[in-house]
Amino acid sequence: MAETTSPAAMAEEWREKDWRDEEGELLPEVVELVQSILAAEDGASLKSLVSDAHEADLGALLAQLDAEDRSRAVALLGSDFDFNALNEVDETIRAEILEDMAPATVAEGIATLETDDAVAILEDLDEDERSAILDKLSPADSFALRRAFDYPEGSAGRRMKDEFIAVPPFWTVGQVIDHLREAADLPDDFTEIFIVDPGFHLQGHIRLDRLLRAKRPVVVTDILEEEMHTVGASEDQEDAALLFERYNLLSAPVVDEVNRLVGVLTVDDIVDVIEEEADEDIKALGGVKADEEISDSVWTTAKGRFRWLLINLVTAFLATTVLKSFEHQLEAMVALAVLAPIVASQGGSAATQTMTVAVRALATRELGPRNAWRIVRREVSVGLFNGIAFALITGTVASFWFTNAGIGVVIGLALVCNLVAGSLGGVLVPLALDRLKVDPAISSGPFVTTVTDVTGFFSFLMIASWWFRI
Amino acid sequence: MAETTSPAAMAEEWREKDWRDEEGELLPEVVELVQSILAAEDGASLKSLVSDAHEADLGALLAQLDAEDRSRAVALLGSDFDFNALNEVDETIRAEILEDMAPATVAEGIATLETDDAVAILEDLDEDERSAILDKLSPADSFALRRAFDYPEGSAGRRMKDEFIAVPPFWTVGQVIDHLREAADLPDDFTEIFIVDPGFHLQGHIRLDRLLRAKRPVVVTDILEEEMHTVGASEDQEDAALLFERYNLLSAPVVDEVNRLVGVLTVDDIVDVIEEEADEDIKALGGVKADEEISDSVWTTAKGRFRWLLINLVTAFLATTVLKSFEHQLEAMVALAVLAPIVASQGGSAATQTMTVAVRALATRELGPRNAWRIVRREVSVGLFNGIAFALITGTVASFWFTNAGIGVVIGLALVCNLVAGSLGGVLVPLALDRLKVDPAISSGPFVTTVTDVTGFFSFLMIASWWFRI
Repeated sequence: MAETTSPAAMAEEWREKDWRDEEGELLPEVVELVQSILAAEDGASLKSLVSDAHEADLGALLAQLDAEDRSRAVALLGSDFDFNALNEVDETIRAEILEDMAPATVAEGIATLETDDAVAILEDLDEDERSAILDKLSPADSFALRRAFDYPEGSAGRRMKDEFIAVPPFWTVGQVIDHLREAADLPDDFTEIFIVDPGFHLQGHIRLDRLLRAKRPVVVTDILEEEMHTVGASEDQEDAALLFERYNLLSAPVVDEVNRLVGVLTVDDIVDVIEEEADEDIKALGGVKADEEISDSVWTTAKGRFRWLLINLVTAFLATTVLKSFEHQLEAMVALAVLAPIVASQGGSAATQTMTVAVRALATRELGPRNAWRIVRREVSVGLFNGIAFALITGTVASFWFTNAGIGVVIGLALVCNLVAGSLGGVLVPLALDRLKVDPAISSGPFVTTVTDVTGFFSFLMIASWWFRI
Repeated sequence: MAETTSPAAMAEEWREKDWRDEEGELLPEVVELVQSILAAEDGASLKSLVSDAHEADLGALLAQLDAEDRSRAVALLGSDFDFNALNEVDETIRAEILEDMAPATVAEGIATLETDDAVAILEDLDEDERSAILDKLSPADSFALRRAFDYPEGSAGRRMKDEFIAVPPFWTVGQVIDHLREAADLPDDFTEIFIVDPGFHLQGHIRLDRLLRAKRPVVVTDILEEEMHTVGASEDQEDAALLFERYNLLSAPVVDEVNRLVGVLTVDDIVDVIEEEADEDIKALGGVKADEEISDSVWTTAKGRFRWLLINLVTAFLATTVLKSFEHQLEAMVALAVLAPIVASQGGSAATQTMTVAVRALATRELGPRNAWRIVRREVSVGLFNGIAFALITGTVASFWFTNAGIGVVIGLALVCNLVAGSLGGVLVPLALDRLKVDPAISSGPFVTTVTDVTGFFSFLMIASWWFRI
């Protein structure tokens, strides 16, 4: 039977090949091959297949297996399982995989990682599980990780690697290069070396391209750059990300309260921070919790979204109270009931536009106390302009539709009021929340919608009762 | 007068100091100093002040000056003006600055930049202005830039630097290092060197840390890594960004159609791409054009937002048509008019949640044809769960509020319908748009809102007329 190839041979073949198609999607053939290897419990083939795989590809593969196959794969790989792959899968999947493992096995895997990757895995576990794993680590590893956990969540101290290269100022370039050739546990990648005094206070840094071009007898103090962008270990990772973006950094030294070098932040971690923060903002604005993941169960997802919908319901009832207090007018003139949602909806859209811009500009620090007043003025003017434009359009359409010119005037005036109110709310609410140290992305939406719903219904029905004397 | 210090002395003093406060905001003292220097037209002090400034700080300074001061500053700096600062300011400000300059002056400044930075500046100009500037450049510079513009907008070819280090495979490490020491026009920063054959086909790469640790007589072919993540020059920059994120790259070689090395993409540019793409998605979901900037005038902003509001108005009128067709029922029972917006609003919020998750997952490739069906099923189940939960809550409240149990049943049933419809629309619309190669972030919103408004009003009023026989 020439057509069937053994899984072992296929594993051998796929070890060398690219697992992904042009779009970057994992090829279904690879997933199927792994499934058949797992069905046969053929550990040797599995080990051979993944031996050269990048952690990202191994992670993508695990994510596509079902839960049972996933734990079988990890068990079959044993100590050949690359723990780095755990940082390439969703939190839900990671938790599932770790649950099946003994603390000692996890500790063994964690020990092979750089501190930043180890912290990322341990961070999601609860205190007890984390302690159980840390206790099984070597004192040195355990100390480094415990220190990272002393820094607050989301701080640079949690994201840094404590693997870096620091040399004394009196060394020559030649000594540095010899040290790099001989040292056993160098960081996986590095792009600069640091120069420190005996107390580990930072004197400067030298980028590798500069080091390469220097002659061996040169003393490092002669070529070091003193100017550096250092990050405090307790500083927020978002602030560190802004620094990387602003100055196009590849890495930055992290220092403790007394200015001692304790670690290094690298741009690959910062890329993840930027991606996460953007993800959080997008989700927050859409009313979804930051930690919702596509692999979550129906129940977890529904529960997570319930709260936001509940807040929305409360604000909707608030707006409804306004409508209810005008029951008499609505009864007298049903056209008002038909048109009221248009006023609320246009105001809501204009407010969302303003809010989006304000939230984004606050996140990137383009908006702050220095220019807040100018932006508020601008937004209100924009609201007024578009309010007038939509007053004319909507007023004309409504007049003809209900063959009642008065209706057109009333809805027009209400639209101007609501678009101005919406623009004002759209920028003032995020500014106020930011001042109160509350994340404007998460909390602005419901406030702003309440403003436009209430103002929309109220202004429309007030103006109508005055115009039509009802 | 011991208290007043001359601007020249202050410029000297601030040249050395950090211009920013702890939050990363530019200090007002610096801005005031520059304003007084500009008022005195003191070019020498200005040049001294900015001589050591990072392009990002110079850009931030320019952004805080008014338009008149800005052009005066650039004029006073003359050839000392660092063109890199232009990539640190908003497009609007950049255009203003460039407008005041002669094409020859711009060309002179452009010639000092790396290709990626030059392209970023020239990209926003119109054809004629760009040609006028390219014509003033040296043939080599002009050729490199024209070639970049042959690649489509948003492609890797536009983002790459054509400054990179490529050496033949038979060179030794010693030869490479000597070349690095002697070469005149090396890239500003580099983290790896490439090995190419005489036809510039890529053989492999060596990271600098690896090069540093190798001995001089070693031939580069012995230490090169063959496995590389190459990017096609016409490939979308977003795809390149996914590659960088997935494999934690610092740089990646860019190749043309016949696999020749034409440039290199670096992670600092990718950080900008990720930030821009996230910014675009957030703005698109909020109904704001991607190129809206906080420095835009009221008129530009209002015009830019008008279109989205117009689309929203059309969908609002669609929903209103539904309400209007139930005028008789609304007249008979005004409570229906009061409660209808709640049904529409809850459905809209649930749909926005689903849409946000779907748009985001499509952007990060977590959602694709392979798991679309599973996600649709999950979203519908979530909608059903929360629909039932809110049917119970809202139904109970409405029954008591209007002392009419029937109202509670009707609004409850309508909520279940609308939350399911909203969840379905929230995931199917982005999937369909993605399939049609339309950006789901930009276009999903109005479709999805139409679904929930129309379904909300229709289901509520249909069920009501059937229940109450009106």
